[in-house]
This record gives sequence, C-alpha cells and structure tokens, in this order.
Amino acid sequence: MRERLLDNLLWFLVRPSVTGEERRLCDDLQERVAKTPGWEAERVSNNLTFRRAAPDPSREKILFAGHLDTVPEPEGGLPVRVEVARIYGRGASDMKAGDAVMLALLESFSWDESWAEPSFVFYEREEGPYAENGLEAVFVESPWVLDADLALILEPTAGALEVGCVGTAQIEVTFRGRPAHSARPWQGENALTAAGAFLAELHERQVEEVVVEGLTFYEVLVPTMARGGRAKNVVPDTLWINVNYRFAPGKDIEDVRRVFEELLAGHDAEYEVVDYAPSGPVKLDNPLLQRLIESGLEVRPKQAWTDVARFAERGVAAANFGAGLPSQAHQEAEFAELALLEVCYENLASFLRR
Amino acid sequence: MRERLLDNLLWFLVRPSVTGEERRLCDDLQERVAKTPGWEAERVSNNLTFRRAAPDPSREKILFAGHLDTVPEPEGGLPVRVEVARIYGRGASDMKAGDAVMLALLESFSWDESWAEPSFVFYEREEGPYAENGLEAVFVESPWVLDADLALILEPTAGALEVGCVGTAQIEVTFRGRPAHSARPWQGENALTAAGAFLAELHERQVEEVVVEGLTFYEVLVPTMARGGRAKNVVPDTLWINVNYRFAPGKDIEDVRRVFEELLAGHDAEYEVVDYAPSGPVKLDNPLLQRLIESGLEVRPKQAWTDVARFAERGVAAANFGAGLPSQAHQEAEFAELALLEVCYENLASFLRR
Repeated sequence: MRERLLDNLLWFLVRPSVTGEERRLCDDLQERVAKTPGWEAERVSNNLTFRRAAPDPSREKILFAGHLDTVPEPEGGLPVRVEVARIYGRGASDMKAGDAVMLALLESFSWDESWAEPSFVFYEREEGPYAENGLEAVFVESPWVLDADLALILEPTAGALEVGCVGTAQIEVTFRGRPAHSARPWQGENALTAAGAFLAELHERQVEEVVVEGLTFYEVLVPTMARGGRAKNVVPDTLWINVNYRFAPGKDIEDVRRVFEELLAGHDAEYEVVDYAPSGPVKLDNPLLQRLIESGLEVRPKQAWTDVARFAERGVAAANFGAGLPSQAHQEAEFAELALLEVCYENLASFLRR
Repeated sequence: MRERLLDNLLWFLVRPSVTGEERRLCDDLQERVAKTPGWEAERVSNNLTFRRAAPDPSREKILFAGHLDTVPEPEGGLPVRVEVARIYGRGASDMKAGDAVMLALLESFSWDESWAEPSFVFYEREEGPYAENGLEAVFVESPWVLDADLALILEPTAGALEVGCVGTAQIEVTFRGRPAHSARPWQGENALTAAGAFLAELHERQVEEVVVEGLTFYEVLVPTMARGGRAKNVVPDTLWINVNYRFAPGKDIEDVRRVFEELLAGHDAEYEVVDYAPSGPVKLDNPLLQRLIESGLEVRPKQAWTDVARFAERGVAAANFGAGLPSQAHQEAEFAELALLEVCYENLASFLRR
C-alpha cells in the first residue's frame, strides 16, 4: 500500500491546482476513476462525487471529502520531489496527502467487506472565499451527500482525529490619508506610516487560548496582505490591509466586529468583513465518531478552518482525519510524510472493515 | 493675454499625459506649433525642441524647459474645470501652467524686440525614474540646447524664482518573514507586522532643515508605496516598501546609504537605492540669473527635485521659475491660479524685452 500511496500523492502533486485552476486535475481524476468499475461519478464545475453504482441501503453512510486546490506556490516555485520518505510539493500536506488516501480507499479497499456505504467528494476552491467553495455547488447538484451519517474530511491532521474548527474571517482595513507631493509631505497625510502603530500592535499581540469541551483553540489576528500608494513620489492616501482573524467555536460575526471596533478605535481607518466562515462546533456524541475515537485515535481541536463547519451547518456530523502535517500547510517548502499516509489509510481501513 | 493663457492651459489639460502616455499631447503640440511661422522643430520620442529658424548669434541664449507628463489621476478622476480664476485638472500646477506660459511666449511674444535668443524644450517622463527622463534623449539628439546661457524650468514656483533643488532617491526596503498557514502564525514570521515599528518611527520623524547659502531646504523620508503578502490565508513572508528620500544640496548617494543603514539597523530588512537624482547646487552668480533676480523677484530654495540638477550636471546654469503652485503639485484636486500665469508671463516678457 505504501507504494500505491506514494504513487497517488505524486499523481496529485504533479498536477498543479492553485485555487481557480483545478480543471486539469479534476479532468484527469474523472478519467482515472472511470477505469475502476462499480463507481458512479457526478461532476459539477470542477467538483467530483463518487458513490457505488449498487449501494447497500442497509449500511451506515460515510462520506470522505477532500479539496483539490492549493494555495499558490512560493516565489521561485516548489518543485515536486521525494527525499527518502518525505514528499515535497505545493499541497503535499494540505491536502493532497488526504486526497491520495481517499483515492486509495476508492480504488483499492474491499468495500464488499465493509459495514459502511461509502461516497467521496473531491472539490475545488476551498482555499478561496467562503462563498465560492466548491462544496456549495455539490450540496445543490448532489444533495444526497448530505445524507451521510458521518463526513470525514481528510484535511491535514497528522493521523489524529481533529474535531471542531476555528472560524475564520477576512477583514479589509483601510487607512486613509491625504495625497501630496512627496517632497512636501507636510501638505498631506501619509496613510502608510499612519498604519505603523496598528501593525506594531498586532506584532506584539499574544495568541489567545479558548477552551471548548476540554479542547484548547487559539485565536489569532494576522495581517496577511497590504497594498498602498499610487506613485513613488506621492504621499500615499490609502493603505489597504487584509487581516485574517481566526476565532474559537462559539463566537460569531458580531464578536469579529467587536474586536475590530476596539482595535481601530483612535485610528483613521475603516474596516469591512469581506469573508466570514463560521467556527465548527465540538460535538463528540455521533456514534460513528465514537467508534472511531474508541479505536484509539488521539482527539485534538482543529486549529484551522475546515469544511467541518460547513457540514455541521447542514446538520451533518463531521470531523477532520487526514494524512498531511498541519504544520506544513501553506509552508514555503511544504512536504508530507509517507508514513503518515500509511497510518491514516490503515486506521481507516481497519475502522471500515466488518 | 489672460484669455490666451487660460486657453493654453485648458489646451494642455484636456490632453491627459500621465508619464508614459505623452504621445498624443506631443503629437498635437507639434502640429499646433507648426502653424506658427519662424520656428524649427526637432522631435525625439515624445520630446520636442523649438528654436528660431533664423537665430541671431550675437544674442544671449535662453532656454525654457517644461515637462509634458503628469502623475496619475486620483481615484475617481480629476475632471478639468474652471472655477472663477482657478483651473482644476491633473497637472494644472505641475506643470501645465508652466507649459502654457512657454507656449504663449513661443506663439505670442515679439522676439524681434528681445535681447535673448530663445529656445524651448517640452519633454516626457519627468515624473518617472531619473534615467528615463526625456531630457536625456534631448541632450543626445539636440545637444545645442546645452549651449544655453541660462535654462529656466517652468516648474511650479508660484511666480517666485526658486534656485537649487533637493535631491531625490527612491529606496526599496524589503522586510523578510517566513510563510505559514495564517491559522497558526507562530509557525512563521510576519513580514507585515515586522515593519510596523519602522513605519511608526517614520510617522513620528521630524522634517530636517538644512541651510545652504542662506536658503533653507527640508529633508524628508516618505514611504510612498507598499506591497506585501501572497494570499489572504498565508502569513506574509515579504513586505516591499518604497521610500522617497529628499535630501539637501551637497549630499550624495553615500549620505543616502548611511541614512538607511542607520534606519534599518536592528530590523530584518534589506534596502536598495533604485533611483537617484542628485541635488541641484545653489549658484546665484550667473549674470542672466542676477538680472532676473534684480527685476525684483522673490528668491527661494526649491523644495522638490527638478531638472535644474540635470542641467547643472551638464554645466548649464538653471533655475525654476514657473506659474503653478508648488503646494498643488500631485494633490488630489490639483489646481492652478490663472493670475499666477499672467504674473509669470508678464515678468518673463518684461525681463526679455530690450
């Protein structure tokens, strides 16, 4: 299985799929799975669902979900390469390792010997705005996926079971100034330097710990992008900063707004919440989830937003259980550990066997 | 003359000419001047020189220079309009007011009654990098312009005589961090917040006064543009900031470097001087300049970089004497005062008459 998992991961990695550019990977995946008999595919945009052509309605339904897209490559690229048992490439951990395990389950697991009725969703645009996420189209076009008794999302968890998830909001903060010739800056107001104190404050800000059902989540406020200025010799009259706020389960958009009202008090700046994805509740009482927990897996809080929250909103119990390393997600030289793909696959296989 | 100056200024303003887009204005100007007999035109790229077809070699040579380009319009545009004696439009003061006075001198002044042998240069790309400035091509293709006994640059001076000029350097400062998933920022280093203290320091920094030959110049350090971050959910690993430094006559590129070494000590940042234009010396001993000063004009230091420095480097005495308002240069709702165009024209006409 090790060789097959390695092959699968490389198969995904050599098909770059930055958010918005998933078509080729999706085409190839559709073509590849078509060669495995017994599966029925549905496609909407660059989202693929697979279920068995002859399902057993008496079985409990389990759904495996994985996004196909990745964040952009770093400057200078991130070539796919294998170093002993480490596989480098954009998306290696987030989450082509999970996709590779899903593909192995789909193609190689003996589903006749399982208590579970499986289905799979490979979807696009998870790394982009909340509303553009490919699952939304899947929920509309293939609503049967919401009948699952448990959805497992193979986001990077290093083989642990990660429950709940922090919510995420993107907030655009705009500092305002007044333009002037840069030789006489006293005739204007510099929006860029005006943001200095705000950025310095966030630089010093501590991570906030929030405990939910015994699990510790971390709240963070991270400026991720900035754009300002119009010309090299003009005092800049605007600075746009995108801030990503991750908040613990139980908080909502009003809490997000309250934080920014406080943060920007006294600054000549406006803010707008341009993207908001709710946090995922921590619910451990699902029978299938209990069975998985009892198999001896470590249970941890999910310190990232995942589509667990989106499934929870639709009433589907969901948890993260994947093969990538969470610490490698979006890293400059992102890699995955082949051993973790094996562990993840074997744990799922033994959970699924009758 | 008031009506003619107004017409001329509007003629320039309704032909937008942001740096790099001067072609149409230059074409129209060439065509227009061709209708005034007695002038010989030379064109290189979007630069135009005019001298008399039958020059008088016994006369003293005076050159009038004006750039055709402007900085970009503000967001939402800057419609050309006249409000009583105020004319709004991008470049109204910097320096289409000066261009309008030059065009009036060229078309309407009785050169037969002058002691001066005139020539005119209208050139492109003054608002861009030092090396791309259109005068460089003019100096190569029409080297006779450097024979002038005095060059007057009609940059905005509100009708005063402004001598010398501050030098200007564009310095790109790059703050470095390490990318990570923005849900776990402690795994990376945020280049954007790392720049907070640097920006806050420049926000508080005082203007430095430097006195040269009794004239006070102001040294300023102005961050004008910033770009940072790669995606909304990735800890930014670089922040690029452009800083415009204006320094007093007498300082050179080594002084610029010294300032940035000090400023960035202790920061994880690099800098590069990407554009450098020398300061213009304060030289009041040119006989023609003396004659102009004695006509009762106010003499002030030039608190902006102008091509005075470029002429000085080529051994040509030069000063700024123009009709725009320096305080309006690059402003959001830039305007010119028609009365100042008249004053500037009349002062030049009386200076030039025998």
